[in-house]
Amino acid sequence: MGKTRLEAFSDGVIAIIITIMVLEMKVPHGEALDTLRPLVPVFLSYVLSFVYVGIYWNNHHHMLHACSRVTGAVLWANLHLLFWLSLFPFTTGWMGENHFAALPTAVYGAVLLCAAIAYYILQQTIIAAGGRDSMLRSALGRDLKGKMSPVFYIVGIVMAEHAAWISLACYVGVALLWLIPDRRIEHTLEKRET
Amino acid sequence: MGKTRLEAFSDGVIAIIITIMVLEMKVPHGEALDTLRPLVPVFLSYVLSFVYVGIYWNNHHHMLHACSRVTGAVLWANLHLLFWLSLFPFTTGWMGENHFAALPTAVYGAVLLCAAIAYYILQQTIIAAGGRDSMLRSALGRDLKGKMSPVFYIVGIVMAEHAAWISLACYVGVALLWLIPDRRIEHTLEKRET
Amino acid sequence: MGKTRLEAFSDGVIAIIITIMVLEMKVPHGEALDTLRPLVPVFLSYVLSFVYVGIYWNNHHHMLHACSRVTGAVLWANLHLLFWLSLFPFTTGWMGENHFAALPTAVYGAVLLCAAIAYYILQQTIIAAGGRDSMLRSALGRDLKGKMSPVFYIVGIVMAEHAAWISLACYVGVALLWLIPDRRIEHTLEKRET
Amino acid sequence: MGKTRLEAFSDGVIAIIITIMVLEMKVPHGEALDTLRPLVPVFLSYVLSFVYVGIYWNNHHHMLHACSRVTGAVLWANLHLLFWLSLFPFTTGWMGENHFAALPTAVYGAVLLCAAIAYYILQQTIIAAGGRDSMLRSALGRDLKGKMSPVFYIVGIVMAEHAAWISLACYVGVALLWLIPDRRIEHTLEKRET
Repeated sequence: MGKTRLEAFSDGVIAIIITIMVLEMKVPHGEALDTLRPLVPVFLSYVLSFVYVGIYWNNHHHMLHACSRVTGAVLWANLHLLFWLSLFPFTTGWMGENHFAALPTAVYGAVLLCAAIAYYILQQTIIAAGGRDSMLRSALGRDLKGKMSPVFYIVGIVMAEHAAWISLACYVGVALLWLIPDRRIEHTLEKRET
Repeated sequence: MGKTRLEAFSDGVIAIIITIMVLEMKVPHGEALDTLRPLVPVFLSYVLSFVYVGIYWNNHHHMLHACSRVTGAVLWANLHLLFWLSLFPFTTGWMGENHFAALPTAVYGAVLLCAAIAYYILQQTIIAAGGRDSMLRSALGRDLKGKMSPVFYIVGIVMAEHAAWISLACYVGVALLWLIPDRRIEHTLEKRET
Repeated sequence: MGKTRLEAFSDGVIAIIITIMVLEMKVPHGEALDTLRPLVPVFLSYVLSFVYVGIYWNNHHHMLHACSRVTGAVLWANLHLLFWLSLFPFTTGWMGENHFAALPTAVYGAVLLCAAIAYYILQQTIIAAGGRDSMLRSALGRDLKGKMSPVFYIVGIVMAEHAAWISLACYVGVALLWLIPDRRIEHTLEKRET
Repeated sequence: MGKTRLEAFSDGVIAIIITIMVLEMKVPHGEALDTLRPLVPVFLSYVLSFVYVGIYWNNHHHMLHACSRVTGAVLWANLHLLFWLSLFPFTTGWMGENHFAALPTAVYGAVLLCAAIAYYILQQTIIAAGGRDSMLRSALGRDLKGKMSPVFYIVGIVMAEHAAWISLACYVGVALLWLIPDRRIEHTLEKRET
């Protein structure tokens, strides 16, 4: 019954996260082209995080469509996901300002990993709340993408010390993997209706 | 009649409060692990306040379900609650940056106390607006948690000067107490429907 | 037809304005009581502006209830009001940080005046869009409060150079005048329904 | 089916963008009139960008009315538009703080151009999702304004190095051109209904 308000609140938080990330891209004090150069990695981090938050919003949107019952556990699992997403502006700014140095790049991946785990927990909580007949469970199927992403994140975190570009390739790779919204849920929903 | 918009506005304000708190966790200028160390207490304060704002959102959500009539007094009691919640980012940042020093820890507790009082006032205003048959009144029952929390806050404020860890234990304790969403209201609502 | 989205957008902007104002209250760097002292005028300005934004939200809420048709002119008159409200965090911070100095106090009043004018324009635009039978027009009646407020603001602006406390008394006075939500509209709406 | 949430999310992001732009207008540290002088160009940039974001919100609002089907492609085309809009606070602050210097003025125009292109892509995506009978397609007609704006932006970008006032005239000109909300869509919708 509180699904609308859960969606509205999550939308609000995600909208703010996606927008305040840009505040980490501080307005430079000069007017020359040189003053923009140190901002390039900050801008690239911003683009990557914008895409990630967009993906989370998109899939969160689809997942809640398949959620039939909002329990206290669902509310808290959702807040837990929002908590990790709220750290994106911090890790994005830190990675960008330090030009993809080892530690910030690893921490960026660690927060991505925590968000992925929180998303998984939310998914399981919604499935549990939905009971045996959960729409979401049948929609997810084997959930291959959900299982592969953490592996890539861990590779990214471990490799950051040796070659940050491999970490970044992992993070970008997972983003590309998810860019296609979760059609499985759409399909299952359509099937049920017919 | 204006309940939807009251909820939407409160959700907006709470969503922004929960998200701008993270802005107090300033991106460090170095890339070494050492630069993160001073942020640890800021991060812990952020976690505590995130949980508190989450609790307020959750219970606010349940309380408004049981609100049958939105009067001018309800609108202002609600804004009064939002005012105290809006001070959380400030007290959180101050307590975190000063590593749980006496005064910031006491002030943190004082704002928690004010928010609790504001919540209580809002509760009573909704009950008064609902008239003799108020759904919220019967849902609350003895309201033990609501009566115990201020006591803990006051202990926390008083003890801050002597032992900040006792204050923190009080604040964390109340949070744990409330982490379970207010099932009383859910139950009463369900009963009424059957 | 677009009233819901107009309300949602205005609520969003007003929620953000009311919340980012608190960001002007910068977290002090020390932990002593002294570090809080310079924040007292900033805090008082914040309280005043919080009440003002609350009043605008409240009355905006009531006014839109009585709005029957959303035209392009209504959309822009609404954005015009939001523009002046968006300057509140700036004038609030400036007045507070300078401890109610003459010029910042006058500028604070000037922005209050502009917001009041913008509110009046929005009111007239909604009445014009509603046609001869406009519900809002009959609800407003003589609109005494709306006509008195600008006079007080102007007195406040003019007196700022000589005695800032008179200006503040004017601003606080108008706030108290409006704190009671616009029951006229509620009454007219109720009458129409019966 | 997800149109409501798409609107809500877009409204949230646009509301935040329009409001955080004002944060670039930093509260000056003195209380004299002189301290406001360097803020004049920042203020003027803010006004221009506020109007632009208002225009985008207005037209986005109308465009989604004519959108009959929300696909994954529409969601991403929408996020793409929001991405470019999210850069407005940055370019606005940079142009304002550098008093309309050549490069910041050109970059400001470049982001305007990118937002216009993103808007065009979103339009085409909605038309494609709507199929042969797309309401939006017939509403747009020849879309003269949409085709003229990029030309003005490009002139503005190119001229920034030589005469920034011509660039600004271009940007202001396009804003004036669009200030009138897109009545074409309203008209087509009304026709369909009758």
